[in-house]
Formats: sequence, C-alpha cells, structure tokens
Amino acid sequence: MTSENSITRVLANKYSPSGAPSLDNFKVVSAPAPTKDSLKENQVLVRNLYLSVDPYQRGRLTGATNSYVPRYELNEPISNFGVAVVEASTSTDIVEGDIVYIKVAPWETKSVADAAAVRRLPHSTIDNARDFITVFGMASFTAFVGLTTIGKPKAGETILVSSASGAVGQIVVQLAKARGLRVVGVAGSDDKVELVKSIGADAAFNYKTCGTFTEAIKQAAPEGIDIYFDNVGGKFLDAALANINFGARIVSCGMISQYNVKSADEAYGLKNTFNILIKAAIFQGLFLPKYAGTQVESDFVTEVGKLYKEGKLRYRIDETTGLENAPQAVLNLFDGKSFGKSVVKV
Amino acid sequence: MTSENSITRVLANKYSPSGAPSLDNFKVVSAPAPTKDSLKENQVLVRNLYLSVDPYQRGRLTGATNSYVPRYELNEPISNFGVAVVEASTSTDIVEGDIVYIKVAPWETKSVADAAAVRRLPHSTIDNARDFITVFGMASFTAFVGLTTIGKPKAGETILVSSASGAVGQIVVQLAKARGLRVVGVAGSDDKVELVKSIGADAAFNYKTCGTFTEAIKQAAPEGIDIYFDNVGGKFLDAALANINFGARIVSCGMISQYNVKSADEAYGLKNTFNILIKAAIFQGLFLPKYAGTQVESDFVTEVGKLYKEGKLRYRIDETTGLENAPQAVLNLFDGKSFGKSVVKV
Repeated sequence: MTSENSITRVLANKYSPSGAPSLDNFKVVSAPAPTKDSLKENQVLVRNLYLSVDPYQRGRLTGATNSYVPRYELNEPISNFGVAVVEASTSTDIVEGDIVYIKVAPWETKSVADAAAVRRLPHSTIDNARDFITVFGMASFTAFVGLTTIGKPKAGETILVSSASGAVGQIVVQLAKARGLRVVGVAGSDDKVELVKSIGADAAFNYKTCGTFTEAIKQAAPEGIDIYFDNVGGKFLDAALANINFGARIVSCGMISQYNVKSADEAYGLKNTFNILIKAAIFQGLFLPKYAGTQVESDFVTEVGKLYKEGKLRYRIDETTGLENAPQAVLNLFDGKSFGKSVVKV
Repeated sequence: MTSENSITRVLANKYSPSGAPSLDNFKVVSAPAPTKDSLKENQVLVRNLYLSVDPYQRGRLTGATNSYVPRYELNEPISNFGVAVVEASTSTDIVEGDIVYIKVAPWETKSVADAAAVRRLPHSTIDNARDFITVFGMASFTAFVGLTTIGKPKAGETILVSSASGAVGQIVVQLAKARGLRVVGVAGSDDKVELVKSIGADAAFNYKTCGTFTEAIKQAAPEGIDIYFDNVGGKFLDAALANINFGARIVSCGMISQYNVKSADEAYGLKNTFNILIKAAIFQGLFLPKYAGTQVESDFVTEVGKLYKEGKLRYRIDETTGLENAPQAVLNLFDGKSFGKSVVKV
C-alpha cells in the first residue's frame, strides 16, 4: 500500500500470447515515492486520480510486436489514459493543483512526467476530472468515430449494438438514438439489458438467454440491420451478418469474443460473409489515431458535450477503488463482470 | 438449329437453390422466327451476334427473390448483356444495319426489342461489336469500379488478384500495373498463370498446386497485401486476410467458391477477420449499378479505351460458338474450364 514515502505500481509480469489473461500477467509492487526535488526542467510530479481500464490492453500483454499499439514491457508499469492532480511542477505552463490528462499514464499512484506529455484540463468547464477518461474519454470518442465515419447513420435506419452497456456501446446507443435511428442493443445480463433500454434503446436482449442469435436479432429487428456496431466478433457477428440490409455498414470496433482464443484454429469461422458481397455491405476496422486532433474530434466534443450538459447523456461507470485492484478490473472486462465504463480510482 | 423461319432459344428449365448448376437448369428450344411485320411502333428486330456469359447468372437460377438482380423466370429465355445487328426497325433513331448493345438480351438467335431498350453503337470508334461485351463490357467495368472506388490504388502498393485470368481479373491486373502497383495474380492452371504473367503480373501462381494458400501468398508478396481483389471468397480469401497490411482494402467482387455450396453449414468459415479489426481494413461488397451513367463510367471508358487503343490492354476471350452451346459455357465458369472472358457467338 501507498504511504507518504512509497508508491504502488502495477507492472507487466509476463506475456500471454493467447488464452485468457490472469492475475499472473501483473505484479503489484511498492517503490520509493518520487519527490519534487527529483524533478528536472519542465517536469511535473503528479498524483494519479483515475485510470482508464480498456479491453485493448489485453493485446498489449500478448508480447506481440506487430501491432500499431506497442506491447507493455515486462517489469515496467502498465499504462493507459489517466487523470491526475499536479503536486509539484518545474514548468511555467502547469502549476501545482492543476488537473491534467495523461495519455500514457503509468499505473502507479504517483508519477513524474514531462510537462509536454500531460494536458492541462480546464476545471471550470467540467467539474469532474473523471469525465475526461469516461464520457469524454477514448472509448466514447471511439463510439463517435465508429458511428459517424463508418456507420454514417441516417435517421430512420436500424442499428444493432453489441456490448451495448459497455464503455463504447452506451455512447453508440445514445448518439444513434439522438440522431433518429431505431436502436437494438445486446448485452450479457438482464441488468445490463435494463440499462440499455433505460438509455434509449428501442429493443434490447440478453445474448446469454436469447436462444439462437440469428433469430433473436430478427425478432428485435424484423426490418433488418443497416448498421451493426460490433464489439464482440465471432458467432454474434456472424448472426448479425445474416440479418443485414442492402448497403449495411459493419463497424468493427472490437472482437472481445476472439481476444483470448488459444490458437488461430480456435478462432470462430464467419460463415455469412457472402452477405457482404450480395448486400454490397462494408465491414471496416476502426482506427482511432487517424482522427485525433481532427475536425471529427471537435465534432465529438461538441455533440457529446451538448448532450451531456443538457442531461441527455447517461454514462454508467464501473469504478474499482485502489490501484492494487486494477489487475482484477482488467480481468473483469473479459468475463462479463464489468458493467459500464471501467475505471480505477487510484 | 436456326433456319430462316425458326430461331433457337435457351430457357430457364428449373431452379437450383444450391449446389452446382447442370445442363438440366436450361432447355434449348426452337420457336418460330419473329418477322418485321410483327414489329409495333418504335421496335427493332435484331439478330443477336454475341452474348455475354457471367458467373452472376448462377444466382438468377437459384429461384431466390431477395436479390437486387431478379431471378430468371421458368420457361422464359435466359438473358444477359449482348450485341446484335438490326434487321428491321420501326424507330427513326435506329435503322437496319445498326449494331446495338442490349442490356437485357434474351438468349435467342433473333429478338424483337423496344428501340428504347437498345443502345446504338457508333461503329466508327470500335470496329468489333464484341468489344462492347468484352473489353468494354460489364466485367471490365466491374474491374474498374472495384479497383478505383474500393481498392483506391496507390503506386507502389501491392495488389493480389484472384481469378486473375478471368473476365474481371485480367483487367484488374492490367489497370493496376498501369497505375504503378506491384501485381500478384492467382489462377487455376499453369496456362492461366502464364497468361497472367504475360499481361503484366509481377508474380503469379497456380492455386491448385501451390500448397498452403497463406504461405504461397506470403512468398509471392513478402511485403504484404494492400489491396485484395477477391473473385473467389472462401479459403483463399481467408489466406489473403492473413497477409493483409495495415489499412488494406478487400474488394469483394465475387465468391465463386461459395456460389454452389449446398447449405449455409457448408459455407466456408472465415477465421482471419480479426485482421480486419487490427489492421483497420475495409472489406466491401461491390455494387455496380450505382456507378452506371456516372463520372466513374466515363473515366472507365477513357482509361480503358486509351490503353486498348494503344495496344497496351490485352483481353483473352473464351468464345463458344452456337447459342445451343451456351448452357455448357455457363457451367464451364464454375469448374475452371473457361479461360478468359466467356462469350457466346450466336
């Protein structure tokens, strides 16, 4: 545990190229706390407040080096998006007490960072620092980019959203609804289905109890699917493909059902891709970095900010307290235990 | 056979919802020849010269009614793109001796058509009427649309083309080469592979003798695939997906390996679609009708016309003589017997 003189860190302990991750992939350790005397020029000493927990982190623990997202290095801290408060600074731009957003925040209770690597957040506009890694965070931006740049929604169309109570799905459901689409959400428990309905889905069902996926989708969307926002891949994606309309767009945002398969042979084989041909559909992988700092990001902040300020956007958060519990929060993403956007309150 | 007073027709005899087509799907019959006295106002009596034979016709014999391409009606003539010579006309726009293009040409030796349903071809620009259903025909336009609107080729990229000696593939190979891409072609016999190399492919292999598809592609394109122009679907598509680069485009133009599967269970299950997500790739079904009469069609005529006139575009044609042999020409598309763009010389 953390004291005045020590900090807690979560390190990458080992890689798992395939299969489910476990606590063994992580190592929680204590280390001497950094002090303000150790700061070099233009550095800040921060106390981390919240860290984002996201499924893509699984990929960083495979040890593979062929992805555009670098792997975590063994015996180095895991990192992810975070918000922190500045305790000391040798920068003139950022001062003690500032709340900052850190794109690559090491999983440790306190950090030393270059001032250039943190972004000062204007407290005055949003009073909760946590918002920057939740409703305005990466997952939310992912939802916006996928929906607008690949989904290209038109009022009156039908969108199917998997993991609809998750970090990305919740935003997709509400943005699509606000744009006049008929929204069908899918989630993995009755509680989650209730949430999905409460945030505006016209129909929602529990994939664990719905029977045949293809039939369940057909029942929830007898008019067919114009956009499928896919967070799961595998068998459910196949069933969605069986229900697409002409000109459908399939936003490939995640394939959580396939992240932990033990070998390529175990991967689910998609049988309904013939529909991509005969329905002249688009099945496209989402690449977020392309849109950072573009007009799309400004549009995101505007559209989501407006809905949020008007109280029209709800965002369920699954908050884990204590950095030492962060590894379990990662595991919870993969067995359906997490419910909403996962964050760690450091 | 046809005489002065009778014509030959090829009718749809029965539907085959799945499985391979057979001669039993067709019926070749004789009928009284239409005469110029039977013409109503603004009609033409034509003698068909050439008819196009294309894989998509298989889908019109399933009996299914859920496609954007209508099924053939039983006991009515099969139809497809054709060119014909006008023998009589009650239209002032089209006169005896004109060569016309007919989008929906019934498979019969002579036809009566509305003048509005045929398009007069300016003989003076292209001296061979057959060109309009071959090098300037639908398959060729398909190649152009797929390559330019989905493939979006950039010089220096690598494109993989399946059925590379086929009606579409030959054009893709040559257009891609002309635009400065590295071209890898795949075909189903050593003769076809030779053709593919002779029209400009940098590498080509015979998929029937190459061993593991994934390895064969990797060997022919160690730098990875930026565009895959897919005419076959199934296992080869899966292997192509295993070799795509970041940002790859997969043009889904045909899935000839999947047209004749006996049931959905028999369809090949694609295992490498995870790459669409992590490589941020696009897998898109080509829809030709959208581009008819657009700037894309003008660009096609210009680009292909220029290469053709300069003698830089070769197009191997598989010509079947005699309408009574047309059913076999259709079957030849599905067992690898056809070599090049298939046409029937009526």
